[in-house]
Amino acid sequence: MELSNKIIEQAVEAVSKLPGVGKKTALRYVIHLVKSDASSVYQLSSALTQLKTELKFCNNCNNITELLICNICSNDTRDKSIICIVQDYRDVLAIENTGLYRGLYHVLGGLISPMEGIGPNQLNIENLLTRVSNNQVKEIILALNTTMEGETTSFFIFKKLAPFNVNLSVIARGIAVGDELEYTDEVTLGRSITNRVPFDSLLKK
Amino acid sequence: MELSNKIIEQAVEAVSKLPGVGKKTALRYVIHLVKSDASSVYQLSSALTQLKTELKFCNNCNNITELLICNICSNDTRDKSIICIVQDYRDVLAIENTGLYRGLYHVLGGLISPMEGIGPNQLNIENLLTRVSNNQVKEIILALNTTMEGETTSFFIFKKLAPFNVNLSVIARGIAVGDELEYTDEVTLGRSITNRVPFDSLLKK
Repeated sequence: MELSNKIIEQAVEAVSKLPGVGKKTALRYVIHLVKSDASSVYQLSSALTQLKTELKFCNNCNNITELLICNICSNDTRDKSIICIVQDYRDVLAIENTGLYRGLYHVLGGLISPMEGIGPNQLNIENLLTRVSNNQVKEIILALNTTMEGETTSFFIFKKLAPFNVNLSVIARGIAVGDELEYTDEVTLGRSITNRVPFDSLLKK
Repeated sequence: MELSNKIIEQAVEAVSKLPGVGKKTALRYVIHLVKSDASSVYQLSSALTQLKTELKFCNNCNNITELLICNICSNDTRDKSIICIVQDYRDVLAIENTGLYRGLYHVLGGLISPMEGIGPNQLNIENLLTRVSNNQVKEIILALNTTMEGETTSFFIFKKLAPFNVNLSVIARGIAVGDELEYTDEVTLGRSITNRVPFDSLLKK
């Protein structure tokens, strides 16, 4: 695709660096912005700049925050003996939105992926070990995706945590609430049966 | 979806105004930017601002340009007796990339759509009539989509141009080059047969 205009070309180039955005989609966004009123484009542009000027990563858990330590880590009512390991900020949001977890988080910032050249050193794993060596921590919950990368990362962390005296658990996999048995894949259904829970645990929620 | 952070919330709000982008996708873009290095975010942000500070619409054809009159309209080697009517800038690019059209364009900036509340007055149609009343123009090519909105707009322009002495044509619809006959819908195949062209026209390209 050849673009006749230098300014549109620059914008398309910059926008197409967003994840999952190709040149065609980027051009669609850019043309939309050219047609939008100036104030909304300036608003977008300054909102994006603010992401870098105002936001940092929490020194403790690597979550996104405006402060040195994020609101979750600095909240005295949270249970500091449990740490839930997640891939990124969106997973923190998702778990927070359930309202059912009161422990802390540890955001890895990615998953081990030889295909994309991401090794354990590029992830926030070393800092996890420092946190765990603090005696307060009693349980670590692994909440990573069940992809090849997620499982590799979970296993790597499992090995690293072996010398420490903490309980390591994994979030339950099973049939989603509302889904039907007959359309579920065998692996998921198998895990649902193997990891069955006492019926009265449902009554507590 | 509740976002815990004001700055992320603002950015997601602004990004989700892009066409086809919901809150989840916007959040994905925003988190990507928070993790990107500052310089590339500033580059994106300034490229977007430039879209409004540097670009205008051509006074003649409504194409996007940095000048008062776009490069196509001011190019003396282009055939000023033909005007191709298109929906927006992306269509100009698509036709320019074929390298087979040497006339001028007229960019409507949208299509008549009662559903979205877009009437003929919000489109760049009045200006088209002014251009056509100039005796130089001999042919108008309609190159709008064959959607309900496209056909309505084509018909509206057809009615408006009736008093003028210009040839009105429509770009050919037919089976795409490389596509197979048996998988083509009847309407397209029907048009392909009705609007068949002499075989030797293929030899000239």
